[in-house]
Amino acid sequence: MRMVDLIEKKRDGKELTKEEIQFIIKGYTNGEIPDYQMSAFAMAIYFQGMTEAERAELTMAMVHSGETIDLSAIEGIKVDKHSTGGVGDTTTLVLGPLVASVGVPVAKMSGRGLGHTGGTIDKLESIPGFHVEIDKDEFIRLVNENKIAVIGQTGNLTPADKKLYALRDVTGTVNSIPLIASSIMSKKIAAGADAIVLDVKTGAGAFMKKLVDSKELANAMVKIGNAVGRKTMAVISDMSQPLGRAIGNALEVQEAIDTLKGEGPEDLQELCLTLGSYMVYLAKKANSLEEARENLEKSIQSGKALEAFKTFIQAQGGDPSVVDDPMKLPQAKYTFELEAKEDGYVAEIVADSVGTAAMWLGAGRATKESTIDLAVGLVLNKKIGDEVKKGESLVTIYSNQEDIEEVKQKLYESIAISKEKVERPTLIYETITE
Amino acid sequence: MRMVDLIEKKRDGKELTKEEIQFIIKGYTNGEIPDYQMSAFAMAIYFQGMTEAERAELTMAMVHSGETIDLSAIEGIKVDKHSTGGVGDTTTLVLGPLVASVGVPVAKMSGRGLGHTGGTIDKLESIPGFHVEIDKDEFIRLVNENKIAVIGQTGNLTPADKKLYALRDVTGTVNSIPLIASSIMSKKIAAGADAIVLDVKTGAGAFMKKLVDSKELANAMVKIGNAVGRKTMAVISDMSQPLGRAIGNALEVQEAIDTLKGEGPEDLQELCLTLGSYMVYLAKKANSLEEARENLEKSIQSGKALEAFKTFIQAQGGDPSVVDDPMKLPQAKYTFELEAKEDGYVAEIVADSVGTAAMWLGAGRATKESTIDLAVGLVLNKKIGDEVKKGESLVTIYSNQEDIEEVKQKLYESIAISKEKVERPTLIYETITE
Repeated sequence: MRMVDLIEKKRDGKELTKEEIQFIIKGYTNGEIPDYQMSAFAMAIYFQGMTEAERAELTMAMVHSGETIDLSAIEGIKVDKHSTGGVGDTTTLVLGPLVASVGVPVAKMSGRGLGHTGGTIDKLESIPGFHVEIDKDEFIRLVNENKIAVIGQTGNLTPADKKLYALRDVTGTVNSIPLIASSIMSKKIAAGADAIVLDVKTGAGAFMKKLVDSKELANAMVKIGNAVGRKTMAVISDMSQPLGRAIGNALEVQEAIDTLKGEGPEDLQELCLTLGSYMVYLAKKANSLEEARENLEKSIQSGKALEAFKTFIQAQGGDPSVVDDPMKLPQAKYTFELEAKEDGYVAEIVADSVGTAAMWLGAGRATKESTIDLAVGLVLNKKIGDEVKKGESLVTIYSNQEDIEEVKQKLYESIAISKEKVERPTLIYETITE
Repeated sequence: MRMVDLIEKKRDGKELTKEEIQFIIKGYTNGEIPDYQMSAFAMAIYFQGMTEAERAELTMAMVHSGETIDLSAIEGIKVDKHSTGGVGDTTTLVLGPLVASVGVPVAKMSGRGLGHTGGTIDKLESIPGFHVEIDKDEFIRLVNENKIAVIGQTGNLTPADKKLYALRDVTGTVNSIPLIASSIMSKKIAAGADAIVLDVKTGAGAFMKKLVDSKELANAMVKIGNAVGRKTMAVISDMSQPLGRAIGNALEVQEAIDTLKGEGPEDLQELCLTLGSYMVYLAKKANSLEEARENLEKSIQSGKALEAFKTFIQAQGGDPSVVDDPMKLPQAKYTFELEAKEDGYVAEIVADSVGTAAMWLGAGRATKESTIDLAVGLVLNKKIGDEVKKGESLVTIYSNQEDIEEVKQKLYESIAISKEKVERPTLIYETITE
C-alpha cells in the first residue's frame, strides 16, 4: 500500500477500506507517513467527506493508535458526556454529582483548560484541598464506592488524534465534520466510555456557528458511536450567549452548587436535566427518559445531589464545607458592577468576547504556560430577553486588579441593548436519541 | 501574513493576491513554509482551481524563486518550444535546425531524460563527438553565429517549482491544471524565452488522456504566457500512438535527419511544420503563419535545413558526416522483426507499452542512475490505419541482447490488429493562436 495512492483515492471521492484507514493511521502515528502526505489527505477529506463506515473505522483506528483506559473493574455502564466547547459551561461540574446521586458511575478523566476559563480540574481545584493526583486503583475504588471520581489525564491516549489535530490546526483542515467527529469520539472511547452523551453547541459563541452544521456534527458523532457499539445520544444546545451566569473557576463551582440545590440559572438547570436524563437512561438506571428526569429532579429536591457533591469533594481531599459556606472558595479582592447605559432589553451577549474579558481578568489561560486566577471572573446579571433599566447592573465583575477599564470596555462592546422587546433564545434546538 | 489563513482562503474558493502568492512561493522556497502546509495548499488548489490572474502570479513567483537566464545578448526574438511528453517525440531534434535555417534564434537549454528514451542531450550525444559542455559566452556566440546551440541545464532555475513538483508527486496533487500550467511556463520563462510554442499531447500515450483536459491545459498555458508578456501559441496533437516511427536515441537522430530531408514520417513532418511555422511567426521572421510554413518547406527542399543541422553538429564538436552516412551513428548488434500473426488493419498501438519495451531494450532510464544504450530501440513499420498481412513486419527491433522474448511479448500486447478497416487518427486536434 502506498499513501499517495490512498490520497488520490480519497481525492477522487472513493471509499477507503478498513485496512487502508488502519494503514494510514498506524503509519502516521509511527512517523512512516509524513505530515505533508497527511495534510494533503486531510484536505482531500475536507472536500470529499467520508462515508459512515470510513468515519467509524477512522475513529477506531485512532482509538487503537495508543493506550486505552480499561474501566471494566467499575460496576455498571460507564457513560461519558462531552460538550463541544463554549463559554461559561458549568454542565460538567453539575452533571457529575447529579447523575452519580442516582447510581450512574462517573469515572471522569479531565484536563486543564486553555481559553476563557480553566478546565474541569482547574475549577475543582478552587475547592481548598481538592486534588486529582490519585492512582488508577484509587480512582476505580472511589467510583465503585461513591459513583464519582475525577482523575487527571493519564496514559498516551489517541496519539494519532493529537498529532493529526496539531497538523489540521495549521493546514486549514480543522473544519471538517468527519475529522471533528472522529477526533471527539476517539477520545471518549479511548477513555473507556461504554455510552456517550454529546452536548453540541450552536450559535455565535460555539465552534459551530450554524444550526445546520451543529446538526450534521451531532448526527455524525451519534452514527459513529452506534456503529462502534457505544450507544450515543446528542443534544444541540444554544451558545448564542454564555450558558448560565458565571464565567470563572470558583464562580462556576458556586454556580454548580446552586444548581445542585435547585437554585441555579434556569438554562443551566434545564440543560443539565436533559443531558443528565440521557446519561441515566443510557446507564440503564431508568426505563425511560421521563423516569430518568424525574429521578434527577427528586435527587435535587431531596438534597441527595448536593450530598453526592460533598462526598465527592471529601473523597478527593477537598473541604466539603464550601458547599454550605461559599466564602471558603477563593474570593476576588474587588467587585465592580457594569451599569446599563440606557433602558431596554438585552438583545445580544457575544459569548466569545465575554469569555475574552474573563480571560483578561485572569480566569483563563492565553497560552499553556499561563497561570490562572481561580477567584476572578464574571457573573451575568442579565441575559438575552431580560428587561434592563439604566444604571442597573448587567454584569458583576470579580477582579484582583483595580483598573479594569479595558475589561469594562470589552463587556460594553459585547452586550447589545435594544429598545424593542427581545425573545429569549431557544435553549435546546434538537435532540438526537438514535 | 500567515500561511494557514492563505490555505483557508484558497480552500474557500477566494482569489489570492499577488502579494499573497509571492509570500507563499518565497516562504516555501526558503523553507519558512513547511511541506505540510504547501501540500494542503496544493490540494486546495486541486479542488478550487486558480483564476487567470493567480496562475500568472504563481508562474512569475516561481520564475523569481531562483536564477533566470539572460538571453538579451542574442539577436532576435527567442522562441522556445515545449512538448508535454509522449513516446518517440522527435520534434525537438527536427525543429531546432529547421527554424534556425530560416533565421529564428534557437538557444536551447536541455536535459537528460527519464523514461522511454533519453532526453534531447542524450539523443544528440549519439552523434560521435557531440557535446553540450560549453560555457554561456560560447553558447551565446554560437546562437548568434549559427542561430542554434544546445547547452546542458545550468543555474538554479525555478527552485520553487522543483520543490513543489517533488511534493506534488507524493501528495496526489500532480493532476491540477493551474499547477501543471504554471510549472511548465515558469521553466520556459526562467530559461529566457521571449515567446513560447506549446505542443500539448492528447490521447492514451499522453499525460493528458482526454482531449477536453488537453484543451484546458493548452488554454491555461497560452493565457499565462500572454498575461506575462510572452506571446504563446499551442497545438493539441495526437499521442494515441507514438509520433513518427523511431523510438530510441540514435534511431530518432536518424529519423530527424530524414525529416530534415523531407523524407521523414508524414505525421512527424506535418507536426514539425505546424509547430515550426508558429515559431517562425512568433520570432517575426514571417508576416503570417502561411508564409512561415512556406519558408520552412522551401528550406527543407533546398537542403538549407539539413545544412543547418550539420553546422550545428560541427559547432558543438560532433561529426557532421553522420548526416550523410548514418552508419556512423551507434549501431545495435542485432535486429529482429516483429511479424504480424494475422491479416488486418492496425487498430491500436499503446504508446506507453511500446515505450516501456524500448526502455527494456536499454533506450531509456528506469531511474536517474541507469545508463542508456544509445543504439537500441524500435522502428514502427506500421501505424494505426495501415493494412498488414500475416508475416509482415510490424516493428523492427534494434537490440544489443539476443534474447528479446519479453520485449516481443510486450510489443504484441501493445499492438491490436482488427479485421475491419481502421481510420487514421487525427494528428492535430486544435490550434490555439491567441
